[in-house]
Formats: sequence, structure tokens, C-alpha cells
Amino acid sequence: MQKGRLFVISGPSGAGKGTICKEILENENIRLSVSMTTRAPRDGEIDGVNYFFVSKEEFQKIIEERGFLEYAEVYGNFYGTPKMEVMDMMNAGIDVVLEIDIQGALQIKEAYPEAVFIFILPPSMSELRKRITGRGSETEESLELRLGETLNEIAYIDKYDYCVVNGELQDAVNRVTAIIMAEHSRVSEDVYKIIERYKEEL
Amino acid sequence: MQKGRLFVISGPSGAGKGTICKEILENENIRLSVSMTTRAPRDGEIDGVNYFFVSKEEFQKIIEERGFLEYAEVYGNFYGTPKMEVMDMMNAGIDVVLEIDIQGALQIKEAYPEAVFIFILPPSMSELRKRITGRGSETEESLELRLGETLNEIAYIDKYDYCVVNGELQDAVNRVTAIIMAEHSRVSEDVYKIIERYKEEL
Repeated sequence: MQKGRLFVISGPSGAGKGTICKEILENENIRLSVSMTTRAPRDGEIDGVNYFFVSKEEFQKIIEERGFLEYAEVYGNFYGTPKMEVMDMMNAGIDVVLEIDIQGALQIKEAYPEAVFIFILPPSMSELRKRITGRGSETEESLELRLGETLNEIAYIDKYDYCVVNGELQDAVNRVTAIIMAEHSRVSEDVYKIIERYKEEL
Repeated sequence: MQKGRLFVISGPSGAGKGTICKEILENENIRLSVSMTTRAPRDGEIDGVNYFFVSKEEFQKIIEERGFLEYAEVYGNFYGTPKMEVMDMMNAGIDVVLEIDIQGALQIKEAYPEAVFIFILPPSMSELRKRITGRGSETEESLELRLGETLNEIAYIDKYDYCVVNGELQDAVNRVTAIIMAEHSRVSEDVYKIIERYKEEL
């Protein structure tokens, strides 16, 4: 059995990471990593499905044990990706997809450089502007700030392995799917095991 | 327009390189590189389609100009891959596929390391034995020699980027197709051009 791989899907907000991930997860051999958080569960949220809900003390303990691939504090609550959870799935031959912002992706690259890093780009700044405006949650000023921030984020693209422009959704999904398939054909330690098998056969 | 890439499809004979290449070429944006040779054309062979037919003097001149990505002498005839031909297609945005043995692939890696190297493996030695025997052109002794040679060749797999086991043909074709698609999503100079465009837009 081939080990699973970790695919980090990242990029500026509004690029469509979430929609792409949802489509990718149609494949039964791929699962989304479940984050751990110290915030209280909201109505309908299930422990172990939406998040692993833990106390601040528990979270702190895992930080100290270096048990997170990445973590961050947002408005006083902690969010993190537990390493053990991801490793267990990969050892069971399942690919793990992690949807995360650029800061989180850079942390993961430090902790687990063997992951495959995919940057999702919006097709253009004007299209991104349209998508953000469509959500209706931004003032003109905060919109301009956000677009400037997006440009800063895009500069980190050289830390990534792949870049997929999300213009037409199905095309972007096909590209990410191709990346996942191709990465399983990379010459790696698995290949050396195959060679050994050929030798034994002869 | 994105530049084309060179995909070197290689592996031991009997692994099924040729059949896979034929399927891949169904895609209109991919072409097979046409080799140059000093041997005489056979009935029905067309210059520029099956081969570029040239004199030994012309071939020698191109060797001296370092105009081949690889070349070899087989039974007194020369065969080679003209660099110019491949580069012209890539500059026109066309992917070039080159089906070649391992010695040729290693020469190309020296001359053009930016190429993508794909190793096609037979599913097992017993399956390879069956395929070669099926062709009926080998004695028992030459068969054993060939299988031994195959094992030596497989040892070069670590010079390659990808490895595809050709058990079920359609699965192998899908994998090579995914590799071609994924390589076009690699973070490369093309991506930096895209970033510049985003900046100009804002």
C-alpha cells in the first residue's frame, strides 16, 4: 500500500480554496484535516467532525510537545492542525488535504516540508474585487486594503510547488486532481521497494 | 501563451512506452519529436514524418554543432533528436513527447535537464517475460539476458522525476496525462509573469 500524502491548499481569501477543496473531497481516498480549537462549539458543530474542541490548557500542552503542524491565535481563540491526526491518515494510505491561509502554509513548510504546496490564484484582481464585493461585507476602504494584502500574499508563491489559477472551477479542480495523481507517481522511496520486488522475482 | 514542455518517456523495452505515447498523442497540443537518421527510408516512410533522413556528413555536422539532444549509432546507422526541432515546437506552446531508451534519456538529462523524465515500469518481471515471449522473437537464453538487462536499466530510475507502472494501459495513460497537466501548474517563471500582471492591474 502506498502511503498518503499531505496536500496544502492555500492562497488569498476569495481565490476559491474552499470550493476547490469541497470538490476534491468527492474522491473517497482523500480527506480534509480536522483542526483543533479552543473556541466553544457553535450550534450543530460536532467534535471530531467540524473541529476537535479542547481547553486552552490541552492546546497549550500540545504546542509544548510540538504536536501541531501549524497553529495560530485569532481573536483570543487558538486554532491548529494536530500532527498525529494527519500522520495517522497518511499511514492508512489516505491523502490529506489542508485548506489554510498563507501564514499557516509557511508554518507547515517548516514543520513538514514533504507536503505538497498548492497556491490557488484568482484569475485577475478585477475578478477578485468582484467576488469580494459580491459577498457585500466590505467597505470601499477595507476592500482596497484587502486587495493590497492579496498582492503581498501572492509574493509568497515561490515557496509553493504548484500554482493553479481558479478561473473556471472545473478546470481548477481538474488541475488539482492531476497534481495529486502526479505526486503519487513521483520517484520516491516507494519506487525503491518496487525495484526490490522485481529483483526478488528474477 | 504558456511555453510547451519536453516529456521524456523512457523505460525498458516491453514496458509499453510506445503504446502509452500513442494514446497521449490523441491530445492535439502534444506532438512526438521526429528523429533524424542516416539510414535509408523504407517503403512508405516520409521524410519529416517518420524521420528526417540525412546523409552521414550532414549528421556529423549537427553533432559538431551540438545540435542533438541525444544521438546514438545502431548497426552503423546514426539516430538522433535534433534540438532545434524540439525547441521550435515548445516555443509555439506545444508539448513534445520523446519516446526513448534509458541511455538516450540520460543523454537528454545532460543536454536539457529542464525536461520531465518519466520511467515506464512493467507491472512485474513475470508479466514482462510474458510480453517478450508473446512477441516470439527471443530464445530462452536471450530472454534471460534481456530480463537481466532490464533489472540493470531499472536501477537508473533515480535519475527520473516520475515512475508509472504500466499494468492496466488506461490507468498508465491517465497517470502520464496527469503528470503533463501537473507540470504545467508548477511554480515557474510563467507564474512570475502572472504576478506582474496582478500588480499592474491594481
